[in-house]
Amino acid sequence: MKRIVSLLVAVAAVAGVAASTITSSGRANEEASPIYGVTIPSGYRDWKLISVTHEEGDFNQLRAQLGNDVAIKACREGKLPFPDGAIIVALHWKRVPSDEDNQVFGRVQAFVAGSPVNLQVMVKDSKKYAATGGWGFGDFRDGKASDQALHEKCFPCHIPVKASDYVYTHYAP
Amino acid sequence: MKRIVSLLVAVAAVAGVAASTITSSGRANEEASPIYGVTIPSGYRDWKLISVTHEEGDFNQLRAQLGNDVAIKACREGKLPFPDGAIIVALHWKRVPSDEDNQVFGRVQAFVAGSPVNLQVMVKDSKKYAATGGWGFGDFRDGKASDQALHEKCFPCHIPVKASDYVYTHYAP
Repeated sequence: MKRIVSLLVAVAAVAGVAASTITSSGRANEEASPIYGVTIPSGYRDWKLISVTHEEGDFNQLRAQLGNDVAIKACREGKLPFPDGAIIVALHWKRVPSDEDNQVFGRVQAFVAGSPVNLQVMVKDSKKYAATGGWGFGDFRDGKASDQALHEKCFPCHIPVKASDYVYTHYAP
Repeated sequence: MKRIVSLLVAVAAVAGVAASTITSSGRANEEASPIYGVTIPSGYRDWKLISVTHEEGDFNQLRAQLGNDVAIKACREGKLPFPDGAIIVALHWKRVPSDEDNQVFGRVQAFVAGSPVNLQVMVKDSKKYAATGGWGFGDFRDGKASDQALHEKCFPCHIPVKASDYVYTHYAP
């Protein structure tokens, strides 16, 4: 009996840990990125546009980069480094042909954003993320953070654009 | 003398007409599109993103479509037709390779928004533009409206997507 009680206590403890991974918003803690603890920022889809990208090859994606007000202000003023509080979100979609457009053109030449592939987030906090150029990174698919192995690649991949404060995107007028 | 005075009156009248083409904002009336009288909406660059497009071939452009709050609400709710007051702005940029990205990839696969090509505006006013599906059109280059011949093509080109209320763009999640 004692062992059964101990087992129940252990199960309850595990359940308690599981419960603690649910945040106050009801979202599971798995949404926070490994290493950085970056989450998908609330309301990001309402943010202003920085620029757009087309990735060919294996990616075959159309992308848009949105910024919160701090990031947009820095972009427009051309001030680097980005100040603390700046957040950039990159929306990556599958690039798909637009049947409607192409019927008008009579050939396949127009491509639009298809289903979402992933979402990438960069959060500037020069103290918290001092070891990675002041940026915290998050990669999400279907709202869930990708694994640690992927996040270990984020900063190294951004080092080549150190001169642009580790940001590839430039504001499109 | 009488003829000279008449001439002066005529010149003054012409000057008066010219003066009237300057709007209260100090912008020349040449910014209003022929046929429709559509102008570049103030603050459009702060609007929310609807979607993005890649046009291959002769265009070789990356594009982004932004909407005012009325347009975005309709897009998100999937309600057609768009209500009066909806405005969609399409930003068209030259598609250029991103040297920064491509150095990392080791091949040319990333393209970004380059210099602006033109700006297209659709304004919904079901009464004012009843003859053209309720939409007024404007095409602008360097802030100046394109000519009448170009604007005569706007509505015919949008007729194939009558089922989408004459709008090609679909909201990207």
